[in-house]
Amino acid sequence: MKAYSALEAHFGRIGRLAAIEGLLHWDTETVLPAGAAADSGEQLAALRTLLHELETAPQLPEWLDRADDEALDEWQRANVQEMRRRVWHQRAVPAPLVAALARAGTECVMAWREARARDDFAALLPRLEGVVALVRERAAAKAEVLCLAPYDALLDEYEPGLHAVRVDEVFDALASFLPGLIGDVIERQQARPGPLPWGVGFPLATQRVLAQRVMAVLGFDFQRGRLDPSTHPFCSGGGDDVRITARWREDSFVEGLQAVAHETGHALYEQGLPAAWRFQPVGQARGMALHESQSLLIEMQACRSRPFLSWLAPQLAELFDAGAALTASSPWSVDNLERVYRRVARSLIRVDADEVTYPAHVILRYRLERALLGGGLPLRELPGAWREGMLELVGVAPPDDRQGCLQDIHWMDGTFGYFPTYTLGAISAAQLHEAALGAHPELPQAIAAGDFQPLVRWLRTHVHAQGSRLSGEALLHAATGRGLDVGCFRAHLERRYLRGD
Amino acid sequence: MKAYSALEAHFGRIGRLAAIEGLLHWDTETVLPAGAAADSGEQLAALRTLLHELETAPQLPEWLDRADDEALDEWQRANVQEMRRRVWHQRAVPAPLVAALARAGTECVMAWREARARDDFAALLPRLEGVVALVRERAAAKAEVLCLAPYDALLDEYEPGLHAVRVDEVFDALASFLPGLIGDVIERQQARPGPLPWGVGFPLATQRVLAQRVMAVLGFDFQRGRLDPSTHPFCSGGGDDVRITARWREDSFVEGLQAVAHETGHALYEQGLPAAWRFQPVGQARGMALHESQSLLIEMQACRSRPFLSWLAPQLAELFDAGAALTASSPWSVDNLERVYRRVARSLIRVDADEVTYPAHVILRYRLERALLGGGLPLRELPGAWREGMLELVGVAPPDDRQGCLQDIHWMDGTFGYFPTYTLGAISAAQLHEAALGAHPELPQAIAAGDFQPLVRWLRTHVHAQGSRLSGEALLHAATGRGLDVGCFRAHLERRYLRGD
Repeated sequence: MKAYSALEAHFGRIGRLAAIEGLLHWDTETVLPAGAAADSGEQLAALRTLLHELETAPQLPEWLDRADDEALDEWQRANVQEMRRRVWHQRAVPAPLVAALARAGTECVMAWREARARDDFAALLPRLEGVVALVRERAAAKAEVLCLAPYDALLDEYEPGLHAVRVDEVFDALASFLPGLIGDVIERQQARPGPLPWGVGFPLATQRVLAQRVMAVLGFDFQRGRLDPSTHPFCSGGGDDVRITARWREDSFVEGLQAVAHETGHALYEQGLPAAWRFQPVGQARGMALHESQSLLIEMQACRSRPFLSWLAPQLAELFDAGAALTASSPWSVDNLERVYRRVARSLIRVDADEVTYPAHVILRYRLERALLGGGLPLRELPGAWREGMLELVGVAPPDDRQGCLQDIHWMDGTFGYFPTYTLGAISAAQLHEAALGAHPELPQAIAAGDFQPLVRWLRTHVHAQGSRLSGEALLHAATGRGLDVGCFRAHLERRYLRGD
Repeated sequence: MKAYSALEAHFGRIGRLAAIEGLLHWDTETVLPAGAAADSGEQLAALRTLLHELETAPQLPEWLDRADDEALDEWQRANVQEMRRRVWHQRAVPAPLVAALARAGTECVMAWREARARDDFAALLPRLEGVVALVRERAAAKAEVLCLAPYDALLDEYEPGLHAVRVDEVFDALASFLPGLIGDVIERQQARPGPLPWGVGFPLATQRVLAQRVMAVLGFDFQRGRLDPSTHPFCSGGGDDVRITARWREDSFVEGLQAVAHETGHALYEQGLPAAWRFQPVGQARGMALHESQSLLIEMQACRSRPFLSWLAPQLAELFDAGAALTASSPWSVDNLERVYRRVARSLIRVDADEVTYPAHVILRYRLERALLGGGLPLRELPGAWREGMLELVGVAPPDDRQGCLQDIHWMDGTFGYFPTYTLGAISAAQLHEAALGAHPELPQAIAAGDFQPLVRWLRTHVHAQGSRLSGEALLHAATGRGLDVGCFRAHLERRYLRGD
């Protein structure tokens, strides 16, 4: 048998078992009985160990070498490249370090929950020091094997091929105008009327109906996926079994619906991946930045646009206000929806931040995590650096660490290198949306009529169907004619928030 | 490391992965999107293959031999014995035969669905011949390795240690009086008034409330399990995550509720298995006969008893008939519930059969499957043999094969040796119930007051907590002082159906 065939069989098995792992995560967050958490954790750990063994099987390096000399087509070659990347990421880190980091991460997350509740960063410090030290070891181990700089080796887990020098370029360009833009937007906003109150409640069952309606319009295939409630919205699964979750609150539909739009963007990507390569590495989503670009393109670019809001307005009035008329003084008017959907504030909490300030939160975290890992910032100085950075980038400083450096879970369990993908995704989303508009100038009218098919078809072709054939930025270049382009994102923000397009 | 420790680690991993397999089955039957069946099947197949590899790992026979010479306690020794049984069952059958039977079974099930719809046994014949031939090969392969007779080797998969000579003894004793008893019961029944009609409908949501109420009374721990709707009721999972399903129809609560009681019996067994041996072979349920004894003890012995019906009657009137009074002429009276719950009929379909005639259906299938595998009955003569057997055992013959030998799925996918466990379970249930009553004469009063704790505690101690420490019949002997005892089952049927106790 050719080495490539053996690799494809081996990774096909890994892909199927990894899909089961995804299902277990969904189960844990949606239907698992409360008392079954320990059993479920043990099952998940057994599967994870097994996947690690399969990904580090001793014969793989030789098979990969031999496959290089075989006659392969472009997709097969890209598949081998993805396999190699996975194998070396897995082999790079010695098992005791994997175990130590997992243990330290679990303990640090527990300590963090308590420290956050009591606003006590000092109490967290020893645990977090331990995690950071292990992440440094991990980055160094990967760096050596992958021939990358340590931080780049971490980035490569989430966004293959991305280097910090490129992130610096992009984020520095963004930081050069974003604080000023935030100020301009807020100044303009203060001169205008604020949103009208809804005057009604939002029954959860009705919000679910609205969610299903929006998902259907967006092209989510309910024969190949589900929507369920959970504590935190997420998208899991892939191929013909993509499951998203939502959380609804009685006093507003906005957060719930936007999260559904966001997760549907992720789900469309998964449902649109190339079926011929299902369960193979090259058939998976390209990276976290591109994945986020798909969720943000749907949530931010499309589902906060005036055409979408003009489709949404009568749906809202029908479902929540007995079909009230959409007069200018109605809270369901498109103008009022825009006021709600485009509210910008210098807020302290990243996950609650709006489209304009969110990237400032991310740039701060990116700069801090590089400094922490690189040793330029001692961990004990993190709270101060956080406050300074917030003032500089967002224009407001947290009064305590709970609303400052204790707000995110990421670093606590050892996740470093992930934060930048949020904003790289936002930038990519702006570019992809612009390119789709260029190819289909009728998009806004279609969306206003509840027809997302032209947009989704364009995404299917230029993003979803590409799997992991290209690197993230190469795919972006092929789809839009440019690599990451902060200018396009800036233009989008200025159009929407300074000119009100 | 001691060989035993290595075995425990290895089988602990198998147990956790097998639990995941159970979860995938639950997922498939309850929440899986329609379009995801193929993906899910591939994932399940990958996991199954992996489990087979782990169970046939080459080092296991040597570890098992070495463990025999190590100092082990009683549970550890029983654990090794269960491991050995599993390993040799798995190793006995060559992989090509496993694959051939799986393929032939799938194709035969498809052909069977069509043949049943068209009442065309002849069209099924070639496929079923193929399956039977492969099952014979499988039985022969297992017989050689396990040093058992071929049919006993199949029995041993479902009820370890059980031999056909014992089943013959038990079933012959049963067949010697059952047809006569059926006649007597029906004669007595015809002389008495039939059930009154309900006069109301049974909303599904209310039936679900009733099911949850009954499950709670029975001692089902909802922190460690779930209830969901599905097409066919089943119980899956184990330990702290036991999930049962139910099916409800609008025109009667009886079938739905009894299925819930049945599956709750299975679930109590799983929730009561020894936590210290979770995921180990000795910590699993003993066998299918004993498992069925737990479901039938709850469904038949307890939940068709007069004390239970007297607890149930006011619940029904409250939930479905606005709290109607339980007068003698009310359909909710205990007398009327008894008439409904104890209706006996010479029916054609096993799964719809009552407590009295069900064993006759099983004896027929057991005798036929032995004759089919042994070669004494050519497959083409099955329809005739079925009709003769039904006349002899149940007292009625099917007018077509659809209601005759085409009704069950079991043989179609190669399941031979399973049928007897249904009735061995019913016999065991009668014995265990009698023993529990002997130890706790207050049981009927407790149940009438909605208190199943004395019964469930007795089962916990004498059955559930024993895991697979003993063989099925040895456990029965330890719990009741006797092996399988048809006389006890006969006495139960006569008390309930001839004397109306």
